[in-house]
Amino acid sequence: MKLLVMFDVVEVIRTKRDGKKLKKNQIYKLIDEYLKGNVTEYQMSALLMAGYIRGFSDEETFYLTSAMLESGRKFDFSEIDGIKFDKHSTGGVGDKVSFIVSPLIALLGFYNPMMAGRGLGHTGGTIDKLESIDGYSPQIDEKEIVKILKKNKAAIFSQSKKIAPADKKLYALRDVTGTVESIPLIAASIVSKKMAEDISGIIYDVKVGNGAFINSRKKANKLATLLVKISKKFNVRAHAVISDMNQILGYSAGNAIEIKEVIEFMKKDYDIPDLKKISYRLTYELLKDHLEINKDEFFKKCDNLLNKGYIYEKFKKMVFDMGGKTKSFEDVENGNFIKKVFEYRSKNSGYLNEVDTYLIGKTITLMGGGRNKLGEKINHNVGIEFFKKIGDKVDVGDLIVKVFYDNEDTKREVVSNLNRAIVLGEKCEKKQIIYNSL
Amino acid sequence: MKLLVMFDVVEVIRTKRDGKKLKKNQIYKLIDEYLKGNVTEYQMSALLMAGYIRGFSDEETFYLTSAMLESGRKFDFSEIDGIKFDKHSTGGVGDKVSFIVSPLIALLGFYNPMMAGRGLGHTGGTIDKLESIDGYSPQIDEKEIVKILKKNKAAIFSQSKKIAPADKKLYALRDVTGTVESIPLIAASIVSKKMAEDISGIIYDVKVGNGAFINSRKKANKLATLLVKISKKFNVRAHAVISDMNQILGYSAGNAIEIKEVIEFMKKDYDIPDLKKISYRLTYELLKDHLEINKDEFFKKCDNLLNKGYIYEKFKKMVFDMGGKTKSFEDVENGNFIKKVFEYRSKNSGYLNEVDTYLIGKTITLMGGGRNKLGEKINHNVGIEFFKKIGDKVDVGDLIVKVFYDNEDTKREVVSNLNRAIVLGEKCEKKQIIYNSL
Repeated sequence: MKLLVMFDVVEVIRTKRDGKKLKKNQIYKLIDEYLKGNVTEYQMSALLMAGYIRGFSDEETFYLTSAMLESGRKFDFSEIDGIKFDKHSTGGVGDKVSFIVSPLIALLGFYNPMMAGRGLGHTGGTIDKLESIDGYSPQIDEKEIVKILKKNKAAIFSQSKKIAPADKKLYALRDVTGTVESIPLIAASIVSKKMAEDISGIIYDVKVGNGAFINSRKKANKLATLLVKISKKFNVRAHAVISDMNQILGYSAGNAIEIKEVIEFMKKDYDIPDLKKISYRLTYELLKDHLEINKDEFFKKCDNLLNKGYIYEKFKKMVFDMGGKTKSFEDVENGNFIKKVFEYRSKNSGYLNEVDTYLIGKTITLMGGGRNKLGEKINHNVGIEFFKKIGDKVDVGDLIVKVFYDNEDTKREVVSNLNRAIVLGEKCEKKQIIYNSL
Repeated sequence: MKLLVMFDVVEVIRTKRDGKKLKKNQIYKLIDEYLKGNVTEYQMSALLMAGYIRGFSDEETFYLTSAMLESGRKFDFSEIDGIKFDKHSTGGVGDKVSFIVSPLIALLGFYNPMMAGRGLGHTGGTIDKLESIDGYSPQIDEKEIVKILKKNKAAIFSQSKKIAPADKKLYALRDVTGTVESIPLIAASIVSKKMAEDISGIIYDVKVGNGAFINSRKKANKLATLLVKISKKFNVRAHAVISDMNQILGYSAGNAIEIKEVIEFMKKDYDIPDLKKISYRLTYELLKDHLEINKDEFFKKCDNLLNKGYIYEKFKKMVFDMGGKTKSFEDVENGNFIKKVFEYRSKNSGYLNEVDTYLIGKTITLMGGGRNKLGEKINHNVGIEFFKKIGDKVDVGDLIVKVFYDNEDTKREVVSNLNRAIVLGEKCEKKQIIYNSL
């Protein structure tokens, strides 16, 4: 006599294949048996493809997220007596917003336990950028995080293997089976990790454009709506901002070079309007339910914190708390990491019309600044600095890009990529950085 | 410098995922790299699911079939000076038509190299049934087939591993990933094997009903149309018949019991109208382009061959040619294989309305007469004999089914299955055996 009812994975696959909804216990069992190895990779990939095409309802996405979250451990920051917030970006090129938002959250009296990722493909990763500073040790355990949060209110650390292991396994499979670009699967992947942070509020920065994973405002809004909706089902206050990724954020993209840019911005060496605008806005949207001042007042407050050097001081402390060395911090600040530079100047005149931001990201990877596969080592010193934004006038001979590189062999391909990536044309509008929020 | 252009399987998966058509070289490369192991099972299952949902065009299905065919070897029967035909059934319960059609083709002056399969799931297999006769050795090579064909014009042998190996690998994967019931994939699987037979004409018997893989006339017609269309692209004359599988064909289902029934039919011990009708019709549709007589004349000719015992004699020769032993043939003929019998009689009166033919097939498997997994051994001696057809009047106490079994332990479940499978009700129409042909 059979006492155990067998889990019929083929029946579950067929259900989704035929466009029907999966039940809570089917989804939980699926993830559980997948992690145990009883549901095979080829069965899961068939299911993911069926789900990609047929879609998942919001309820199914919630159960999937929840099952992925429950597949691992969750942080317990209950020892910390304060409100914990986080910010998440869906990824782009030159995105250094976390380095402003995290100190801001702390300076405004809240806590930010930020679990961040490494770069893959054309996008950089927050952790990679911070590791430009020698000694920065992002892999710390819960006790250490609590200690740092108590002292400094904000900490940027890397994802432990114990958080949402199902997501890790699923992501690797999606990557090689053409099932990455599914809105519900993207949402489940993001939220399953963020909900392990023991936070009470989150702001999602959903990037849209040729340097983002999503290139349509409609899809970006769909993803943002879903991220917010699913997060709320976990009783977490959630908001989202849809922002532009049709050119790099700020002026630089790479690893050390982005930290350098952020430090210069914090020290008020020069203004970076898009970086400032989105950092303030994301922080405002995140905290607004707890603020007694309006948006304008809030932005003024942020400006005050910036101008007095408080953001810079807080960021520096955050880096040192995580093991970052003073000497190396100063080296990055002073650009001592730069080995070779070449200037990419315009042969024509006109206005900067378009930047193939995906190609810019891939070019950094090509130079060694990013990785094509999980686990690859990267070169923190290479990168790109733009001197023009879309809509800017360009004259013959104008400097458009400075390339910081190590290896003479890649130079030719880099130039060829820049030729393709940078498009001049008629006079055109500057890009807005924020499209909408919800 | 890269000299080889890498085959990007993820790009191929994405193409099908987005509902676009695959190109000939993509399909060939896909199958080739899959057999080599460079395309993984999880990538292929994602592609199969995308294809299941998005569909394959007739052209794509042809390329797929062709790539699967080319993955293995093909028979070369050019030595045989005559026209070679074959018949293929999509599978059902109690389907013993091949044992009539194959001798008929030979008796009518044509050749029939019939590569047949074993049973899986709820359906029996032609080879399994023939192996009820001791000594029957279906695994013979091309030379031996040619020898037998020259002598006897018809031979039923089993599929060699060298024929369409891609189909075998794909079928095993489809079986566990919920991608079996795709019309183009079913068609490609069937035709890729049949086109290896070096035939110039084929008749497809597409079964429809609760004992077949397809339970909708519309889908059956779609499959039949596709089978004919794809076969014609290989320059093979092809026709199809859509026939009923809402009850077993003839009166018996099993292995030895079906051979016994066929022999009795051939020896004119009793008439089996549905078996006769479909066997003659399939042979007519197969040969009609080569006949100088009309359908009625053809059926009379068949009757003549049957009544004179020629079909029986030809079948017997076919069995002996393949190694079948006289003594065992007679044992099967006389029912000496029967171990235990119980009679399933009606507790009610009415008319036989419905038979869950799938469940009948599964019940034979349960008794050991079929297999759930490829490679399992089966018991040739068990089976079921029906004494009523749908539409027949049933009185209380009437014999409906005789069960031939070995193992007392299964009896209870068999009875419970029969209780569920057999439905009496109001007076109803008898089932037609053939719906249409094309």
